[in-house]
Amino acid sequence: MSDDSARAWQARFVALRENKLFESFVIGVIIFSALVIGAKTYDLSPLTQRVIQVLDLAITLFFLAEIVVRFLAEGSVRRFFAKGWNLFDFFIVAASLVPLQESDMALLGRLFRVFRVLRLVSIIPELRVLISAFLRALPRMGYVSLLMFIIFYIYAAAGSFFFAHINPKLWDNITIAMLTLFRVATFEDWTDVMYETMAVYPSSWLFYISFIFIVAFVFLNMMIGIVLETLQREHEQFSKETGEGEAAEVSAIDERTRQMAERLARLEAKLDRLVAAQVGQKR
Amino acid sequence: MSDDSARAWQARFVALRENKLFESFVIGVIIFSALVIGAKTYDLSPLTQRVIQVLDLAITLFFLAEIVVRFLAEGSVRRFFAKGWNLFDFFIVAASLVPLQESDMALLGRLFRVFRVLRLVSIIPELRVLISAFLRALPRMGYVSLLMFIIFYIYAAAGSFFFAHINPKLWDNITIAMLTLFRVATFEDWTDVMYETMAVYPSSWLFYISFIFIVAFVFLNMMIGIVLETLQREHEQFSKETGEGEAAEVSAIDERTRQMAERLARLEAKLDRLVAAQVGQKR
Amino acid sequence: MSDDSARAWQARFVALRENKLFESFVIGVIIFSALVIGAKTYDLSPLTQRVIQVLDLAITLFFLAEIVVRFLAEGSVRRFFAKGWNLFDFFIVAASLVPLQESDMALLGRLFRVFRVLRLVSIIPELRVLISAFLRALPRMGYVSLLMFIIFYIYAAAGSFFFAHINPKLWDNITIAMLTLFRVATFEDWTDVMYETMAVYPSSWLFYISFIFIVAFVFLNMMIGIVLETLQREHEQFSKETGEGEAAEVSAIDERTRQMAERLARLEAKLDRLVAAQVGQKR
Amino acid sequence: MSDDSARAWQARFVALRENKLFESFVIGVIIFSALVIGAKTYDLSPLTQRVIQVLDLAITLFFLAEIVVRFLAEGSVRRFFAKGWNLFDFFIVAASLVPLQESDMALLGRLFRVFRVLRLVSIIPELRVLISAFLRALPRMGYVSLLMFIIFYIYAAAGSFFFAHINPKLWDNITIAMLTLFRVATFEDWTDVMYETMAVYPSSWLFYISFIFIVAFVFLNMMIGIVLETLQREHEQFSKETGEGEAAEVSAIDERTRQMAERLARLEAKLDRLVAAQVGQKR
Repeated sequence: MSDDSARAWQARFVALRENKLFESFVIGVIIFSALVIGAKTYDLSPLTQRVIQVLDLAITLFFLAEIVVRFLAEGSVRRFFAKGWNLFDFFIVAASLVPLQESDMALLGRLFRVFRVLRLVSIIPELRVLISAFLRALPRMGYVSLLMFIIFYIYAAAGSFFFAHINPKLWDNITIAMLTLFRVATFEDWTDVMYETMAVYPSSWLFYISFIFIVAFVFLNMMIGIVLETLQREHEQFSKETGEGEAAEVSAIDERTRQMAERLARLEAKLDRLVAAQVGQKR
Repeated sequence: MSDDSARAWQARFVALRENKLFESFVIGVIIFSALVIGAKTYDLSPLTQRVIQVLDLAITLFFLAEIVVRFLAEGSVRRFFAKGWNLFDFFIVAASLVPLQESDMALLGRLFRVFRVLRLVSIIPELRVLISAFLRALPRMGYVSLLMFIIFYIYAAAGSFFFAHINPKLWDNITIAMLTLFRVATFEDWTDVMYETMAVYPSSWLFYISFIFIVAFVFLNMMIGIVLETLQREHEQFSKETGEGEAAEVSAIDERTRQMAERLARLEAKLDRLVAAQVGQKR
Repeated sequence: MSDDSARAWQARFVALRENKLFESFVIGVIIFSALVIGAKTYDLSPLTQRVIQVLDLAITLFFLAEIVVRFLAEGSVRRFFAKGWNLFDFFIVAASLVPLQESDMALLGRLFRVFRVLRLVSIIPELRVLISAFLRALPRMGYVSLLMFIIFYIYAAAGSFFFAHINPKLWDNITIAMLTLFRVATFEDWTDVMYETMAVYPSSWLFYISFIFIVAFVFLNMMIGIVLETLQREHEQFSKETGEGEAAEVSAIDERTRQMAERLARLEAKLDRLVAAQVGQKR
Repeated sequence: MSDDSARAWQARFVALRENKLFESFVIGVIIFSALVIGAKTYDLSPLTQRVIQVLDLAITLFFLAEIVVRFLAEGSVRRFFAKGWNLFDFFIVAASLVPLQESDMALLGRLFRVFRVLRLVSIIPELRVLISAFLRALPRMGYVSLLMFIIFYIYAAAGSFFFAHINPKLWDNITIAMLTLFRVATFEDWTDVMYETMAVYPSSWLFYISFIFIVAFVFLNMMIGIVLETLQREHEQFSKETGEGEAAEVSAIDERTRQMAERLARLEAKLDRLVAAQVGQKR
């Protein structure tokens, strides 16, 4: 194939990718594939099952075709994978292509197909924006989560030391104790857990109340952290985009008064010379 | 009827509609109708039931009369239905006029009458403002809800695949599984659901904990989205309404310094000419 | 008593009221009275009960004396009751003076004495500020509460119509139904309520899910309303108090550039005259 | 040891303390010590227990060595303890050094070792920042907590007076009643508590609903307080650090227009003199 015809084909693929109708059709297929996945969870007649199996294969092939179109439209492997969302789509499509027919693996194969619904996120821009916002907030959330993990770890260790002999099902080791504490943090029947240990250690309510207070504070902090982060980013972005408003006016005044000050200095110098000349004239 | 007398009648209806006393009376009737609806939920003597039936009819007729007054005050069908709240009132009044006397439908007829309480929202301006704010926040909330729905759908499909054989009452198909997940999201006895599946898949706690974390984040995002949306709108509205404050002063300074800069340039030109003239004189 | 000696006495009462030591002592007595109230909830020996009864009387008399001091310090009945917090203290002290010794009323008498703990709020300024903030946010909270009440009322009426025959304990009439809905709103065993009605009306989950979504939104709105209200007030107060910062600088620049513009206009006029004179001289 | 060699040694300790590799190693040991603590909560073979005991001793000695290095790097006792985080580390290390081998105390000894995990907080700067933010918000949180405590106290006293005879397990005295109210505040099976007292006092739902509303408001206030506090502080810090942005420009304009105004006044005076001279010349 000549270079020219290759470029012509690429242009055709780009046109297809950018086509609004094609995009809507892809969204339609994703939603349809989600419905097929949902249908599989119902008890179905053998015929319906057969139909669904065929539809499943058709959807898989369509997704494969669509990603090939987008790959060819991009033209280069590197440029295609440079976009995070392409990588995301590629893995979802690739995962559902892996043949998993053995009894154990069939369930995993089904699970991979469920992830196709996530392609809705990668194809609708507004949802992509929401996910990006989530990823930007991750670093700050990460440190708060680490702090929360430390608190859970300490309380779980202490709880396991003291309460393991009371109820091994809840406090046997640090892993189980952390799960129990997560349950307490969600207020789910936490008083049952507390009353049980209070029967042995009457002042163990202090353990629970202090834990709830500390975790609530850390959670609040996380929430506020995200609010602040988001507010700041929106503000920055807004001022970058517009370049107008009060801030722009102040900058203009700043520049203008600087020039005025220079001109005034020049004016005074000239007036001084004029005065000097006149004095010389008079003499 | 001549055009003039028609216009005179319309003016009278407008006067009645704008009358504060009439408005208070309408509010009173709405509250009274709410109480009548509430009363119907109690066991009543046949006589009281008869009285209430009569009152119900009287209220229906009053509401009909009131909407006719407002319709005639407006003068034109188009202008009347152009206001969303009029449409809202019209449907509520019309729904309670439909005769539903058969045993099955009687309940539905009662339900329609319950919606009359909503007329409180359309008649009290402060409540209308709250509802408008809600409607403005809808688009952003819509995308977040879609994201949340996708998450629920994926977890429900996965949960149905893996846990259906453990407890069909909770995980039989994707619809029931989504309801179960909503229950988990509200922390309502969610550990009972978890412990049941952990007996078969010991690491299924990961399913629940990850779900809770993701849903909590999406919910937080929704909340922050609404806060930002509202803050921005209030800010815009405020600056539009007042036109004063720091921003206005800065604009004034901007304009004034521009004129000063022009005048200064002119001044320098004149001084230059003066100097040139003097030099010419001296020579 | 002469006017002078009356004024001298009043000055002494003012001095006593403003005395830091006296204030600390009053706070101490309030805390002590709270402890006495708490002690009464324990099973006590007859002797301790007797001691507490005496202490109770002593505290009552001290509070009476303290309010008399503050009343006399103020000097006039009108000025005393003009301050809301004085009225608040007066009612609390007066209520605990009413003799309620009959078996039924004794409990009420005890309750009145419990309210003495509230005097901590009226005597510690930081707590008074918190309460004032609460009162300022009341109007906005009022309308949101009204909206919430309307939603509860409609859902309670509908719930009572449809579900009363399923479980009269939860849905018999509108009052009980509203309490049940409040329980659902706090997520307290709400799925038990739902599963019960879903057995009769399988699609009644729509009733619960829509209710939870609407109530959550209204609650969010209330929360945001309070945040906005508080933010705005703090901002206003800050700018009023300081009078400095960027806003003050901008105002100063505004005034200064106005004077400069006038002076520049004057300067140009003078220069024009100078030029005219020179032209005249040359000719 | 001469002064010089002492200083040389101190420099070496400072170098060691500042060494990134050493810091990473310390973090590694802390995490390892956390894992050892976690491992102890599992049932272990005698050999593993022996190994863990040795590891525990090694970790204790390492922490001792590390704090000695930091102490010697600082050079003076006073300077070392002036930093709050050093004091924090010192107590954690010291607590795990105390020999507690008796049966009762062994548990306490274990607990002290659990606190070693907290050293992660003192060594990771981002976590230290989070804790500092928490400490700064404490004063405001303190007053809100006091207000909350007063509300709990009053409701607990009233609840104890009225409901103690209904269920002593929940309402026997003020301490138990406060715990019960905390349970109600977390919505944990609170309707069970309410239905029990409503069987005796049918209108006792008012007690619970009013309590939930008041506590929710106070909690909201606390949350908003923290948000405002944090927002204000971040803003202040930002403006202090940068010294640029709009605020800095406005200050520059303020200063520049002041100088321009002075120069203009001087210019006018000179022009006046020039005019006067010319008038004199003409005459």
